[in-house]
Amino acid sequence: DLSRDIDESLLQEVMEEINNQAIGEHLKQLTMKPHMATTKGDEDLVNLILGLWQNKETGLDEAKAEWYHAFLSFPNASQPNNVTVVSPSGSIAFTSQLTEKGDTADQRDPDVVQPYAAYSPPGNPKGQLVYANQGKTSDYQDLLNKGINLTGTIAIVRYGGAGRSAKAINGAPFGVIGVIVYTDPKDINDGKATEQETYPNSWYLPPSGVERGSYNGYFGDLLTPYYPAKEHTYRINESEIQGIPPIPTQPVGYEDARTLICQLKGPKADETWQGSLGCDYSVGPGFRDPGAFPPGSDVQVNVYNYRDIRKSANVMGMIRGSVEPDRYVMYGNHRDSWVHGAIDPSSGTAVMLEITRVLGKRLKEGKWRPRRSIVFGSWGAEEFGLIGSTEYTEEYFSKLRERAVAYINVDISVFANATFRAQGTPPVQSVIFKASQQVKIPNSNSVSVYDNWKNFFNRTSPTYGPIPSLGSLGAGSDYAPFIHYLGISSMDLAYTYDRSKTTARIYPAYHTAYDTFDYASRFIDPGFTSHQAVARTAGNILLRLSDSLILPLNVSDYGETLDTFYKAAFAEYNTGLTTCSITLTPLGDAIDRFKTAAASINQQIVSLQQDDQRSPLKVRMINDQLMLLERSFLNPLAFPDKFYYSHVLWASKNSGVNTFPGLADAYAKASISPCTSAEWKEVHKHLTIAIQAVESAASTLEAVI
Amino acid sequence: DLSRDIDESLLQEVMEEINNQAIGEHLKQLTMKPHMATTKGDEDLVNLILGLWQNKETGLDEAKAEWYHAFLSFPNASQPNNVTVVSPSGSIAFTSQLTEKGDTADQRDPDVVQPYAAYSPPGNPKGQLVYANQGKTSDYQDLLNKGINLTGTIAIVRYGGAGRSAKAINGAPFGVIGVIVYTDPKDINDGKATEQETYPNSWYLPPSGVERGSYNGYFGDLLTPYYPAKEHTYRINESEIQGIPPIPTQPVGYEDARTLICQLKGPKADETWQGSLGCDYSVGPGFRDPGAFPPGSDVQVNVYNYRDIRKSANVMGMIRGSVEPDRYVMYGNHRDSWVHGAIDPSSGTAVMLEITRVLGKRLKEGKWRPRRSIVFGSWGAEEFGLIGSTEYTEEYFSKLRERAVAYINVDISVFANATFRAQGTPPVQSVIFKASQQVKIPNSNSVSVYDNWKNFFNRTSPTYGPIPSLGSLGAGSDYAPFIHYLGISSMDLAYTYDRSKTTARIYPAYHTAYDTFDYASRFIDPGFTSHQAVARTAGNILLRLSDSLILPLNVSDYGETLDTFYKAAFAEYNTGLTTCSITLTPLGDAIDRFKTAAASINQQIVSLQQDDQRSPLKVRMINDQLMLLERSFLNPLAFPDKFYYSHVLWASKNSGVNTFPGLADAYAKASISPCTSAEWKEVHKHLTIAIQAVESAASTLEAVI
Ligand SMILES: [Ca+2]
Ligand SMILES: [Ca+2]
Ligand SMILES: [Zn+2]
Ligand SMILES: [Zn+2]
Ligand SMILES: [Zn+2]
Ligand SMILES: [Zn+2]
Repeated sequence: DLSRDIDESLLQEVMEEINNQAIGEHLKQLTMKPHMATTKGDEDLVNLILGLWQNKETGLDEAKAEWYHAFLSFPNASQPNNVTVVSPSGSIAFTSQLTEKGDTADQRDPDVVQPYAAYSPPGNPKGQLVYANQGKTSDYQDLLNKGINLTGTIAIVRYGGAGRSAKAINGAPFGVIGVIVYTDPKDINDGKATEQETYPNSWYLPPSGVERGSYNGYFGDLLTPYYPAKEHTYRINESEIQGIPPIPTQPVGYEDARTLICQLKGPKADETWQGSLGCDYSVGPGFRDPGAFPPGSDVQVNVYNYRDIRKSANVMGMIRGSVEPDRYVMYGNHRDSWVHGAIDPSSGTAVMLEITRVLGKRLKEGKWRPRRSIVFGSWGAEEFGLIGSTEYTEEYFSKLRERAVAYINVDISVFANATFRAQGTPPVQSVIFKASQQVKIPNSNSVSVYDNWKNFFNRTSPTYGPIPSLGSLGAGSDYAPFIHYLGISSMDLAYTYDRSKTTARIYPAYHTAYDTFDYASRFIDPGFTSHQAVARTAGNILLRLSDSLILPLNVSDYGETLDTFYKAAFAEYNTGLTTCSITLTPLGDAIDRFKTAAASINQQIVSLQQDDQRSPLKVRMINDQLMLLERSFLNPLAFPDKFYYSHVLWASKNSGVNTFPGLADAYAKASISPCTSAEWKEVHKHLTIAIQAVESAASTLEAVI
Repeated sequence: DLSRDIDESLLQEVMEEINNQAIGEHLKQLTMKPHMATTKGDEDLVNLILGLWQNKETGLDEAKAEWYHAFLSFPNASQPNNVTVVSPSGSIAFTSQLTEKGDTADQRDPDVVQPYAAYSPPGNPKGQLVYANQGKTSDYQDLLNKGINLTGTIAIVRYGGAGRSAKAINGAPFGVIGVIVYTDPKDINDGKATEQETYPNSWYLPPSGVERGSYNGYFGDLLTPYYPAKEHTYRINESEIQGIPPIPTQPVGYEDARTLICQLKGPKADETWQGSLGCDYSVGPGFRDPGAFPPGSDVQVNVYNYRDIRKSANVMGMIRGSVEPDRYVMYGNHRDSWVHGAIDPSSGTAVMLEITRVLGKRLKEGKWRPRRSIVFGSWGAEEFGLIGSTEYTEEYFSKLRERAVAYINVDISVFANATFRAQGTPPVQSVIFKASQQVKIPNSNSVSVYDNWKNFFNRTSPTYGPIPSLGSLGAGSDYAPFIHYLGISSMDLAYTYDRSKTTARIYPAYHTAYDTFDYASRFIDPGFTSHQAVARTAGNILLRLSDSLILPLNVSDYGETLDTFYKAAFAEYNTGLTTCSITLTPLGDAIDRFKTAAASINQQIVSLQQDDQRSPLKVRMINDQLMLLERSFLNPLAFPDKFYYSHVLWASKNSGVNTFPGLADAYAKASISPCTSAEWKEVHKHLTIAIQAVESAASTLEAVI
């Protein structure tokens, strides 16, 4: 039946069947072994997921593994990375821990990878230690302003404030020759820093825990920007890679960091630089004399990382649509972890597998087939930089661009069990709201996920009044290539913190050997009921997107974003723009045009829903407009220096002004230049780009001819 | 009715009604006055066409003018450009003709623009004259090799062999300071060069005739690449424009060219450089002594061109589709001419107006409405560089990219009355063939346009045997932004020469004041029956594209192109590639994959056509695949230095090898470099780009999920 709409009773049944214990069992299976990208543990999960999705009773229509040749970086198992203190005579006064402490069998698994900074170059730089706060350019500059010569120094910096690789990239121009990164208990543990206070006694990070991570500035396989990393694909030279550390870099636990930082001499660091290591932080350079180390000792960073091209798989699972098989609702999460990855990413994978189990069962029983096709992706090598998902979007660029309705990402499904939160572009707000209104929070028969969310994070919408606050999408997980490169309306869903109870930068075991099933089931989500709430919400959204006659994408919600962007631009820039004879009026006009077109299409949808004689092609036409709206904001030439960022509204930016990113960054550069400068030409160009994008969006929604 | 197919009797009736005398009358109206872009004559035609398309009895659903602020270049009416011979004492020994001879009232019209090189900078360079053949880089190099110092010289060159602006761009690095361009009677007149042999006594160019033209290397408004030239649009600096002459350039008639060239001293030019001016061509530098001019005379090029931003209109006419209004079949031609433009472009506009008259009448009578929407475009400022059409594709990029089925261009509809010819991409071949089989050539009841075409231009297809030869699309008319920038399957249709009867580079009155109604009706197409044959063929194609249930785009015909490209690449490059460890095998595999997918979709179409129960959405799905195939060959990052060229198969190239243009040009550069060079990386990159494009195309045609 071409005009069948979503079946609310199906929705209820599916949500009912989504089971917390089953999610726990999926999670247990997924976290038996470390499964870093391309390792045996990862390949075992490829086969596990393939098996589930090909299962005759609960599987999908089709499942397959698709392989890419990904450029990865690993520590050398026979020559472990470390940080040492070396006395002037050459004797080793201190060596950092090579592994994290084995509190349970999980940490002692021989497949646990040594903590390292992926893509750091190898090397053994040695120099006087300085403490450089978060490794921002301003931090290094502050040290310089204090009269500290950074040439030849090793900088120890804490996570946060700047991207991982930025800490080394920022330091090198100041003469820094090696970087040590650690997690300060102040930032991750609410200040807790003893064994008694930390895992296995609480969710806090133990003293030896080390956050691993990919030290890169761009996502996707670093050697094959814009082309899928097949064996035959053209690769740039390693020397052409941008955004990775130019100097050896190594992360350590805060126990080792304490040993180093608390011995530093020199001026005391500013208050904002102080942490919870239990001492006053001085900035160096060098150690106190007298102190724990021989006078004049240097610190040496010993990195033996090597780079390798390895085969990494995406596992793709498909349910064929009954009416519009050429429309794809996409749902994905990465599969690879740094160690056991119980939270990151397996909490999301467990949710995905529960959704595919419940849907697969109905499918195989012949009870249901969605209107549109559903594509599930278990992405490979996300931890190294969203590689699997990016290569997928490169390989299927044309097809996805024409046919993908939306992308749902559930990576870490439960950071903490306080509240649901979502990030996404405006068209997905309404369907997330609708779904979250139909799901109850754990252990409640009355409070909806929506209401609870609104209690924790809210804003006052000019259109709707107080509503939950939808976050915007950065580049933190596999949604990035879908939204930024392909312009597919995307969302990222999770359960998260009560910010009145913790200020932790992220859950404390993140990217460490403590992110295990034991940790998840004891401290993050006992009973897996928050997982279940996320699964029900995500499943509800997925079904609405795939089964609704009219796509549940409310394009008029982009009007609020555009208004906000315009108001910020007007407030911050209009005086300066006017001085240089540039006017925001055409942008305002374009936004008005957009809002009129969006209101009109919403009217048409109402009429269509009331029309029993509606043509299936008229429905398709409207749906195409809704689907393609997001694409109309793309401009592949707008940001030539930013790989994959084509979306004119959501590209990365340095400016803190909440407006069109190209305009914001161009204005920030131009504001101190004369009107005739090239910088002001760039402002005008990015204003034109913004107008063009909004006009295109309006045009997409306007009467089709 | 959602599954109504094309009505063959409608086709026959429409073709019957397309009337040669009506076309003649349209042409007469269009050519009353010169109508260079943005002049009064042009604006009058805007209103004429608007009036016709808004006519209550024979008009379209809607018509409107859309304006752009275009950067144009004009001669100064009060200070005419000229070329002089100046004696060492400063006296003027010769001045070139300021206007073309007034053989009829048309040439004497005060609105005839003086011959000039649009976008040539103003200036008055003076120097010894050299004859530089066609102004190719190799031509200037040949002169240098003969020992001629080109520094400070004025070069006189003939049209042909290199683009207009290239003649100056190529000369400047050799020291040339001014360029004179003329049309050699050998190239345009089959050698005829006297008044008796030329217009008004024949179709040949009179001695004073001068080809005007735009001297630019890129199309679109030169100040606003990639953005529509609205008033508020960001504009690059004039100094940033690439591809226009760096030195003053002026075209002259061959009568004046004879006066200059036949007086040159110096070595005799090579045989291939000789023309039909009736003397031996020497290369200079400087004039013979004794000769017609005072010894030591220089030549001075006096150019007073100025540049101006002017408002130029596209006139857009729409017929709303009944079933799929969001699918657009596009048909267009430019409106602006250099002078009266009877052939270029009014012969095409007359054909378009006859098609809209016949279709508009049926529409207004309520007898017909196409399945898909039809959009007619009367483009402005084409002669200055396809400006109107390019700005249109910039403004409506997203919408057209998603919805345009095909673009039909009929610019010069009749170059000569010997045979139909067509250029296009492979998917349009079949519909052109089908239509041309249903139209008879003028004055025949038996010979089809198709058969006659096959007699004149043919090739042997591996699939079909002997068939008419479809040309490929360059950038010579308004189809360029549609195919190269937007990836819309496009075609250009015309009647043309019997090459056994003339070698003229183009019809002799091209871009001169002799391209008039009198010329067209007496020498090009008396009775307008060739116009009629083109109109019937184009109308038939237009109706098939807009009314057929399944789009008449045969995607499998791309297989032959890909095979041809592959074979040429293998023959020319495989040895070199193998030496540098690059293999063509993945490209061959991708092409095989494409051919399999294309064969499969053709099978599906056959099944669908036989299926009375077919779903309208299944039809739409297949049609989307056919429509979007061409788009899948786009890569906006493939040719960063070539504005608007995104189509990986048809981008401009320097290499003469008939294969993937990026690969061809990269190979040509790399072939003399070592395998480790950056040039070879570029070869590998362009091979990857080709593979990616073919894989995307295959993927678009494969089972939808
Ligand atoms: Ca890649
Ligand atoms: Ca433009
Ligand atoms: Zn993750
Ligand atoms: Zn992670
Ligand atoms: Zn033309
Ligand atoms: Zn022309």
